[in-house]
Amino acid sequence: MRVLGVDCGSERTGYGVIDSDGRVHRILAAGTIRTSARDPFPARLAKIAGGLREVMSGHGPSEAAVEAVFHAVNAQSALKLAHVRGAVLLVLAEAGLSCAEYSALEVKQSVTGFGRADKEQVQFMMRSMFGSAAPVNQADACDALAVAVCHAVRSTFTRRMGAAS
Amino acid sequence: MRVLGVDCGSERTGYGVIDSDGRVHRILAAGTIRTSARDPFPARLAKIAGGLREVMSGHGPSEAAVEAVFHAVNAQSALKLAHVRGAVLLVLAEAGLSCAEYSALEVKQSVTGFGRADKEQVQFMMRSMFGSAAPVNQADACDALAVAVCHAVRSTFTRRMGAAS
Repeated sequence: MRVLGVDCGSERTGYGVIDSDGRVHRILAAGTIRTSARDPFPARLAKIAGGLREVMSGHGPSEAAVEAVFHAVNAQSALKLAHVRGAVLLVLAEAGLSCAEYSALEVKQSVTGFGRADKEQVQFMMRSMFGSAAPVNQADACDALAVAVCHAVRSTFTRRMGAAS
Repeated sequence: MRVLGVDCGSERTGYGVIDSDGRVHRILAAGTIRTSARDPFPARLAKIAGGLREVMSGHGPSEAAVEAVFHAVNAQSALKLAHVRGAVLLVLAEAGLSCAEYSALEVKQSVTGFGRADKEQVQFMMRSMFGSAAPVNQADACDALAVAVCHAVRSTFTRRMGAAS
């Protein structure tokens, strides 16, 4: 399966596309869409949307995944993040992708085996999983890859359990 | 000017398009885009986006306005509403419309002269302003019209003040 993982943020939205059979994962693309705080907020949403559409048309993912609940510093930033997430979910839906949602806990547990891993540990795991193909110093791209890996692992497991029962 | 006002909501998103010189307003369209709670959330966002695009292509507004801050019953519904708002702001930005934002207080003050007016009073004012053209029993469409009227009045005033000084 080809999975697009997205880590939403108004300043930096990370993305990662992987090919995976549920155990072996290969990076096709990973990066960060940056927006400027000087631009009007709707224009920033449009930049994120345009960036994601470019990634999708370049790599044709068959499934998508995002983080379900977010740990925002305060109510204001939670609301801002929710705006970005709404725009991202719309873009994915209009591209015909089903979008799975995983909690930060599930993502971290999937890729590090430890639900309370910090950002550095997630980046470390992405580097050991993908080697030099992992984005360096791009925490958001690494988080997006981790969401994609989480979806690949968990949906493969669920599918196999379904087939076995 | 031709203004599109939008009242965001995950179940019902109201819209209203008016032609206005800042004093006299005429309805071109007003209605409600409804989504089903049984549909996946991204599909509901896509339905709202599609509905708004249809309204825009049918009536060609030159400006748009939405409510800036919202009174949500709880944090969960505030986050849901913020998702819808993010999708709506994206759709407006991608249509090339600048989008003004007004607080509920500003909108109510503009159309009823009273910032703490309730939904019924806003509907009453829309009916006295637009007569039988006002949508009946569609609180969200009336709220959207009120946002459009607020924008028409306030932006005209600001423009005239600028020209006079």
